[in-house]
Amino acid sequence: MTISIIHGVNLSHLGQREPEIYGSETLEDINKGLQSEFPDIKFQFVQSDIEGELVQAIWKAAKKSQGIVLNPGAYTHTSVAIRDAVAAIDIPVIEVHLSNLHAREPFRHESLTAPVCWGQIQGLGARSYPLAVRALIDRLA
Amino acid sequence: MTISIIHGVNLSHLGQREPEIYGSETLEDINKGLQSEFPDIKFQFVQSDIEGELVQAIWKAAKKSQGIVLNPGAYTHTSVAIRDAVAAIDIPVIEVHLSNLHAREPFRHESLTAPVCWGQIQGLGARSYPLAVRALIDRLA
Amino acid sequence: MTISIIHGVNLSHLGQREPEIYGSETLEDINKGLQSEFPDIKFQFVQSDIEGELVQAIWKAAKKSQGIVLNPGAYTHTSVAIRDAVAAIDIPVIEVHLSNLHAREPFRHESLTAPVCWGQIQGLGARSYPLAVRALIDRLA
Amino acid sequence: MTISIIHGVNLSHLGQREPEIYGSETLEDINKGLQSEFPDIKFQFVQSDIEGELVQAIWKAAKKSQGIVLNPGAYTHTSVAIRDAVAAIDIPVIEVHLSNLHAREPFRHESLTAPVCWGQIQGLGARSYPLAVRALIDRLA
Amino acid sequence: MTISIIHGVNLSHLGQREPEIYGSETLEDINKGLQSEFPDIKFQFVQSDIEGELVQAIWKAAKKSQGIVLNPGAYTHTSVAIRDAVAAIDIPVIEVHLSNLHAREPFRHESLTAPVCWGQIQGLGARSYPLAVRALIDRLA
Amino acid sequence: MTISIIHGVNLSHLGQREPEIYGSETLEDINKGLQSEFPDIKFQFVQSDIEGELVQAIWKAAKKSQGIVLNPGAYTHTSVAIRDAVAAIDIPVIEVHLSNLHAREPFRHESLTAPVCWGQIQGLGARSYPLAVRALIDRLA
Amino acid sequence: MTISIIHGVNLSHLGQREPEIYGSETLEDINKGLQSEFPDIKFQFVQSDIEGELVQAIWKAAKKSQGIVLNPGAYTHTSVAIRDAVAAIDIPVIEVHLSNLHAREPFRHESLTAPVCWGQIQGLGARSYPLAVRALIDRLA
Amino acid sequence: MTISIIHGVNLSHLGQREPEIYGSETLEDINKGLQSEFPDIKFQFVQSDIEGELVQAIWKAAKKSQGIVLNPGAYTHTSVAIRDAVAAIDIPVIEVHLSNLHAREPFRHESLTAPVCWGQIQGLGARSYPLAVRALIDRLA
Amino acid sequence: MTISIIHGVNLSHLGQREPEIYGSETLEDINKGLQSEFPDIKFQFVQSDIEGELVQAIWKAAKKSQGIVLNPGAYTHTSVAIRDAVAAIDIPVIEVHLSNLHAREPFRHESLTAPVCWGQIQGLGARSYPLAVRALIDRLA
Amino acid sequence: MTISIIHGVNLSHLGQREPEIYGSETLEDINKGLQSEFPDIKFQFVQSDIEGELVQAIWKAAKKSQGIVLNPGAYTHTSVAIRDAVAAIDIPVIEVHLSNLHAREPFRHESLTAPVCWGQIQGLGARSYPLAVRALIDRLA
Amino acid sequence: MTISIIHGVNLSHLGQREPEIYGSETLEDINKGLQSEFPDIKFQFVQSDIEGELVQAIWKAAKKSQGIVLNPGAYTHTSVAIRDAVAAIDIPVIEVHLSNLHAREPFRHESLTAPVCWGQIQGLGARSYPLAVRALIDRLA
Amino acid sequence: MTISIIHGVNLSHLGQREPEIYGSETLEDINKGLQSEFPDIKFQFVQSDIEGELVQAIWKAAKKSQGIVLNPGAYTHTSVAIRDAVAAIDIPVIEVHLSNLHAREPFRHESLTAPVCWGQIQGLGARSYPLAVRALIDRLA
Repeated sequence: MTISIIHGVNLSHLGQREPEIYGSETLEDINKGLQSEFPDIKFQFVQSDIEGELVQAIWKAAKKSQGIVLNPGAYTHTSVAIRDAVAAIDIPVIEVHLSNLHAREPFRHESLTAPVCWGQIQGLGARSYPLAVRALIDRLA
Repeated sequence: MTISIIHGVNLSHLGQREPEIYGSETLEDINKGLQSEFPDIKFQFVQSDIEGELVQAIWKAAKKSQGIVLNPGAYTHTSVAIRDAVAAIDIPVIEVHLSNLHAREPFRHESLTAPVCWGQIQGLGARSYPLAVRALIDRLA
Repeated sequence: MTISIIHGVNLSHLGQREPEIYGSETLEDINKGLQSEFPDIKFQFVQSDIEGELVQAIWKAAKKSQGIVLNPGAYTHTSVAIRDAVAAIDIPVIEVHLSNLHAREPFRHESLTAPVCWGQIQGLGARSYPLAVRALIDRLA
Repeated sequence: MTISIIHGVNLSHLGQREPEIYGSETLEDINKGLQSEFPDIKFQFVQSDIEGELVQAIWKAAKKSQGIVLNPGAYTHTSVAIRDAVAAIDIPVIEVHLSNLHAREPFRHESLTAPVCWGQIQGLGARSYPLAVRALIDRLA
Repeated sequence: MTISIIHGVNLSHLGQREPEIYGSETLEDINKGLQSEFPDIKFQFVQSDIEGELVQAIWKAAKKSQGIVLNPGAYTHTSVAIRDAVAAIDIPVIEVHLSNLHAREPFRHESLTAPVCWGQIQGLGARSYPLAVRALIDRLA
Repeated sequence: MTISIIHGVNLSHLGQREPEIYGSETLEDINKGLQSEFPDIKFQFVQSDIEGELVQAIWKAAKKSQGIVLNPGAYTHTSVAIRDAVAAIDIPVIEVHLSNLHAREPFRHESLTAPVCWGQIQGLGARSYPLAVRALIDRLA
Repeated sequence: MTISIIHGVNLSHLGQREPEIYGSETLEDINKGLQSEFPDIKFQFVQSDIEGELVQAIWKAAKKSQGIVLNPGAYTHTSVAIRDAVAAIDIPVIEVHLSNLHAREPFRHESLTAPVCWGQIQGLGARSYPLAVRALIDRLA
Repeated sequence: MTISIIHGVNLSHLGQREPEIYGSETLEDINKGLQSEFPDIKFQFVQSDIEGELVQAIWKAAKKSQGIVLNPGAYTHTSVAIRDAVAAIDIPVIEVHLSNLHAREPFRHESLTAPVCWGQIQGLGARSYPLAVRALIDRLA
Repeated sequence: MTISIIHGVNLSHLGQREPEIYGSETLEDINKGLQSEFPDIKFQFVQSDIEGELVQAIWKAAKKSQGIVLNPGAYTHTSVAIRDAVAAIDIPVIEVHLSNLHAREPFRHESLTAPVCWGQIQGLGARSYPLAVRALIDRLA
Repeated sequence: MTISIIHGVNLSHLGQREPEIYGSETLEDINKGLQSEFPDIKFQFVQSDIEGELVQAIWKAAKKSQGIVLNPGAYTHTSVAIRDAVAAIDIPVIEVHLSNLHAREPFRHESLTAPVCWGQIQGLGARSYPLAVRALIDRLA
Repeated sequence: MTISIIHGVNLSHLGQREPEIYGSETLEDINKGLQSEFPDIKFQFVQSDIEGELVQAIWKAAKKSQGIVLNPGAYTHTSVAIRDAVAAIDIPVIEVHLSNLHAREPFRHESLTAPVCWGQIQGLGARSYPLAVRALIDRLA
Repeated sequence: MTISIIHGVNLSHLGQREPEIYGSETLEDINKGLQSEFPDIKFQFVQSDIEGELVQAIWKAAKKSQGIVLNPGAYTHTSVAIRDAVAAIDIPVIEVHLSNLHAREPFRHESLTAPVCWGQIQGLGARSYPLAVRALIDRLA
């Protein structure tokens, strides 16, 4: 089973970026942690700061994997393009966020991408990722 | 370790209530599934249709357990009272929803309770509950 | 044929409550009037001031009767919980109001419950109830 | 006793117009049904697609009849002119709608005309009309 | 000098229509009063309840007169069509209202037609008309 | 093949009406141009300033032709009645506008009629009409 | 008969201030013009740029005169204080504006003061003032 | 003289609930303090977390006392039901809040219940209660 | 102990100004009443109709007194300037209103100044003032 | 004559992307169809998922071609950047959309780019493109 | 070259007023700093807490100087009157703010005065003033 | 001292892009002008039309320089991503704009990025850049 982990904008700086909000783990820590927690899963990791590259990554992931864990970062709130890509593919997508968006600025309360995802996990820090993977495994099994 | 599972309004009818949205598992299925999946955890199960009783359940849970999994049902969108109770206690609360609220009517997109919770899991059906329990265990360990 | 008449919050005080808006008939007058106007119908009368009890009453009525006449009172404008209960059951529900909500404060113009009811009758005073019963009889016949 | 039945825009095409919303009865069916259900009432039937003619019909009805059953059709949501006519006359007016407006597009939730009517009946299909007539008879008796 | 007086919807019933708001003078009183107060002016009087006929009246008035006094009635707040007609012609138009719209319902505060008129006089009862005529004479002189 | 061309309010004055916005061609120019550009098509031309007559024209066109090119003029933004008529018929309707509505006042950005049309062409001046006809021919062929 | 003319903020600079909007007449021109056009009226002229002084002027005018012509200038849109003063006094007040506020920025469309005035005249340039005086004379006579 | 003190949702936890906002006094402290500060007044103390029970408490208080001090807690912002009860009774009600709602989240700025109360005291901590009692005594004396 | 009483715009006319809303006591009655009810307190009384003078009065009061009772009048809803002054000083400020603002026009529901005050008392007529003084004494003691 | 065809985000997946909305033709089908339908035109085809590359493509097209057919995809609703580029160049741009945006989610009703285009064609499926090309040829000829 | 520095409401208390927001420099420090940094410029310094006096200061400055540095303080967000004065004069005006308004309450994000100024500098503390002066010198040179 | 100058979308076309809004200087003119006006500063110049590349440029600038002058272009109003990057770094950022955004379309009034910057300079044309550099030097010195 192959699962794609798609990290969006600003996420390559995890660990140094406002750690009181996003935690002290780096993106590499998260990726390695997933691989060691789920050794039987083949992961495809992508990170991009460019909205259009994330669109392309979603299309590619739909061909190469059975499920997607997607953290669009700030594009969550502005990108109809990523929404359209998620809506167009056939594999399940879970949206994850490290921080609790509902507890932050109002413009972070509405998600343009969540309505076309299967579900959403937010606010649990780096633990959001393995929980999303587990949900995909449960569903795909 | 004790974890409280608080189910809100209309949830005692799971299984028969719009199964295409909420799934076919009953509340008892969910509760039993949690106990069998986490045999070492002591669970406190509560269900109420009455907003004020849910407020009281949250206060009691804060005395008797180390974490809460809270599904307020429809009160998610209308209850400042439940929000105030969650904000007032000291143990972590995770909000869960069986359905993907962002994909439903606009009045379900905003959560009054999520801003004062630790995190939120939604849309994964009955799997939302064990994932929330796991997140609490990880944090409390 | 059994029809449930569910009266919501503040309605047990009809007659003494702002009679220029709600009329001078008491709730008992209305209930007795229905029974004498429709002697062949078996009525189940419920009144509660508590939102969650109204939710429970709707679930019970769906088991014991073939149609519901529902006056949620002020919960019409604030209760997603009652809306969810109405949406989940399979028998027809008619929403009634003694007063003409459109002629009152703006927050009474929108009904959270009406969209999931079969229809709505408002503004005709105590006559709203027998008209709703008649509509149910016509449909169920 | 004379009662005016005023049908607004698009209603002459009932029966062929989106029957899943408006039902299969024609306007003539409705009118004849009223006359046969209430043989002692003298009815004045009017239908017009033109907003200003409906205004004129309301003024005329106020001279020739004791009550009005008014279905403004789509003008319900856009016509201050019809509202002004209803507000200016002295006989009771009941607004009726075949479909449940609250369950349709948001722009159909607000009625410009209902605040100046006596009451409103909606969503009960062709049965909305005789219920409105009965309410008028009860009041005028 | 020819001046067109265009009265909109519901105005043929002045005198009997809510006199506490609109006064007790009839439309004929107003028209005759204008002719006797301004004997040297040739007046063209029009009244229609139909939006499209008012549009046509404006086009005709632009050919036959040097200025228009326009009371669109309720169409003031809903008619982009009348606005477009006023915007398209070359002679000055003054909008008049018998009542003070700012002191009534919020939907009467905004005028769709006033932005393309030369000016607006409201709230002075039947005196609004001769004042508007005088303003046109001053300008056209 | 028969195609109905329905021109709405104020359009009979094309050529003289704000030519910097609407161009210098008259309505007759447009109609004749269509006939000469598409000699094999039978056209039904209608123009009315009255909303209700446009509703009637749409119903008639649905009986006599295979497609409609509809320019509702200002009623685009205010007429639920015309929307309802378009929604009720079974032949394709294309909405056209001479000017680019998105570049004008905000109240012209939203179209009440476009959601129930097949498509919309705007801003291309008098060329909008033959392009719409061509689109209908392509589809109906 | 005494009439107070109260000019608000920025109006002492009439003539030099954006003459394409406000005209080329000075405030003194307007005041003198009124006196010569109505030689039998005793006028009280006030101008102030300070909101609180305008409040005081209204209270004084209510003691010394029988009617007020009030041009609050920009305070029209921001001053609840002036509104409160006008609402508290017993003599008729007409609001006037040189320019057509409906044709300018949206924040000038709503008037806080007009709802408590008797009427409003706007857009007729300096002619707005004598028309307002005439209306007061007609009413007070 | 009898005065009812009605405490709403979450208030039984005063003292332990976010003391930086609500102070360190318990509900019992407040109640006892009132009795000792006003020894001649007979107090009826009620606390409930359930909206419908508060509605019932208001109706009962109207029979047994001459005035009500009401702190609805979070229901202030969501309960049309409590508002309706207050509006229906004939004795004066003062709304009190320990914290200054205007200085907190925007959804706490609007009170559904205050418009039908006699007055409102907020932000003065536990001192809000005796001040409200004193106001009632002054008025009832 | 010195307490400043700052009365805002239009308040010098109390007693004659809409007594059904503001009561029949004059400002002098209120001031004298305070001095006789609290003979040990030294009062500083200020009244101004001018927003900027009220700003200055607040700054001065912060130097000369230990607490402020502030009734900004209509500036409550429009003055960021007064808000800024209150926020900048170090002594407690209580906002008072004679009338119940929540029961009046919507633009009176939001207070710009209350969020930076200690608390707010409204709707209790002239009794609002001594209650506010008492609250300050309790706190300062 | 050279015409640029600029396809925006997600459009390289046409044919496989939600064909019930976007149709079954691929982007290559559309491009080839244009070339065969207009053999005398030289086309420049561009597709990019990256907002900034589309901005650059617009600048380049303004140097190399006489007109642009632009389908920004989802950027239509969020990109001020593309709008600024279109506004800055001197050749005519037509916006096209395969689907009827007015019939989809509300956030697709407003176009940020259309106000600075010459016109817009939407909802006609793949036929939207050749119609736009034809409109450009008519204008440029 | 003469430049007017106009300081608005509350600014005479700089240094003591919330120094964490506005800094510790006094207004006199700022004024003296400007004179010493630009010894060749003749400065006209004005400060007023009264909106109408600021309007007058702007008119005077337009006669006596070649440019204005304007900090309206809180009137930035509420004064149409100051906006009108700035719009009416012919010399360049730069709006300055010590704090970053975009990072504060939402009601401080919109400036009524900035749209009619030449430009705006905010958030740079006391350095905002000399930068504004330098910009004026560059332009006027 | 090193300062990064980051130019956003569409800015490489300065000089040819709507010069009446943005001026006639090219981006190279601006960059060279900065270097010659501040010969002791080491500048890092970046321009990109791609939102994600600007995010990366901000992260890089935070490592290589002591301050940033940022003109996000149109991304100012839509990019939460750039806002997040600015919020995450530790060096001061000044937002600059050539044009006065408050005087343009409403969607340009709100800045998503300014709240997390140190300050903002707008509307002063190409002079905005050196003023921003000077402010940084003053602060960093």
